[in-house]
Amino acid sequence: MYSLKFTSESTFNGMVERDFTVGEVPGVLWSPASGAADRAPLVLMGHGGGNHKKHPAMSGRAQLLVNGCGFHVAVLDAPGHGDRPRTAHDEAEVADLFRARAAGEPEGPIVVRYNAHLAELAVPEYRATLDALQELPEIGADGPVGYFGINMGTAIGIPFVASEPRITAAVFGQHWPDVLAEHAARITVPVEFAMQWDDEHITREEALALFDAFASKEKSLHANSGRHKELPRFEADSAARFLARHLGGAAS
Amino acid sequence: MYSLKFTSESTFNGMVERDFTVGEVPGVLWSPASGAADRAPLVLMGHGGGNHKKHPAMSGRAQLLVNGCGFHVAVLDAPGHGDRPRTAHDEAEVADLFRARAAGEPEGPIVVRYNAHLAELAVPEYRATLDALQELPEIGADGPVGYFGINMGTAIGIPFVASEPRITAAVFGQHWPDVLAEHAARITVPVEFAMQWDDEHITREEALALFDAFASKEKSLHANSGRHKELPRFEADSAARFLARHLGGAAS
Repeated sequence: MYSLKFTSESTFNGMVERDFTVGEVPGVLWSPASGAADRAPLVLMGHGGGNHKKHPAMSGRAQLLVNGCGFHVAVLDAPGHGDRPRTAHDEAEVADLFRARAAGEPEGPIVVRYNAHLAELAVPEYRATLDALQELPEIGADGPVGYFGINMGTAIGIPFVASEPRITAAVFGQHWPDVLAEHAARITVPVEFAMQWDDEHITREEALALFDAFASKEKSLHANSGRHKELPRFEADSAARFLARHLGGAAS
Repeated sequence: MYSLKFTSESTFNGMVERDFTVGEVPGVLWSPASGAADRAPLVLMGHGGGNHKKHPAMSGRAQLLVNGCGFHVAVLDAPGHGDRPRTAHDEAEVADLFRARAAGEPEGPIVVRYNAHLAELAVPEYRATLDALQELPEIGADGPVGYFGINMGTAIGIPFVASEPRITAAVFGQHWPDVLAEHAARITVPVEFAMQWDDEHITREEALALFDAFASKEKSLHANSGRHKELPRFEADSAARFLARHLGGAAS
């Protein structure tokens, strides 16, 4: 059991931003400026590969969830990312990915392998963070908790949600089914899943197979035209509405 | 060129409801009660098979578009539906559908064939209606026009939108690709398309093939778990947001 330590507090775009650590793992907790101490649902987010907990994609989604829905939102730096040290293994895998990219070889096998490794490390970190955040009075042990992560955030999030009954709704997307489909088959909570119809890395069949694998009675696939990096901004709005619908709260 | 004749006017759930005819074809025009005479975008809708222009699915979607977005919305009774006479051919096709349903035979071949016939009749009716509605000062000849129709509304809507440059955004869904895919390949405006992941009538491959056929640079597929008739209510909200995004106006 790791305890939560807040290391700094500031305000950012209408949110209270509190940096924290849980053990060695750095994270950020964003809360409504008008009610940072008020009990509200929590959304745990996972960032994409090569990014970090405060990447604009994370803080932008947090604003929709915090300012729009009144939620608390927490993100961790994934192993080897953001403020965390890179191991020799991290360096070797990233170098292999860049080598494949430069050579025009498929990135999938490397990303799938590396993300599976990171997920093994990150899942217990997310669990420990949830334990620690639920000690805060503004979150509590019995409040609703959701998860939102695309790309590497899905590679970590699917095994996390599959093994974590406290998560009651999740947004995933844009990953290969290898490794993840068997975890997805244990997920029964409502899921919204994003894919890109013209993804140059993940085939349609692969993306559809991962969506199909979820055991959830309620699941929605959003497939948009465009390449891997062209996921439309409006999907973040849709994710916020989905989470508001399931965790309680009004997306605005 | 048929002229528009209004036959009655009332209010319904906050909307001004005007029944009209264009030639022999009966339709309904719903407008904001607070500004029925104000210039606003128009959405043409098509109803599902066996239903009619004022089915609750139509008036419910109209409320989202009229009260939520400030749009005008018009729906026609399809040939053989609602207040229109059924021909011997209509009777025979409907009887064949009920026979197949009772026998547990596939409904697709009959629905595809019958809807293609109805679309041939309905497309010029929708075009004449749009001509006539654009004569109204509150709609005008140069205002934005969208289309929204699922099931039979898609069977009529895809050939209509494919041949109608005045439509600049369209919501379709839940139909077989036979007959329609070749029309869809001529559609380039933004499209939102709904399918049911566990549809007992339309296979996943068929639904995905129709979505894939649209030539639109911007298109979104929404696939939800559940059977044919279980299309979630929130897809109507999504359609209203999509149309508001493309026609101008704020979904609320």
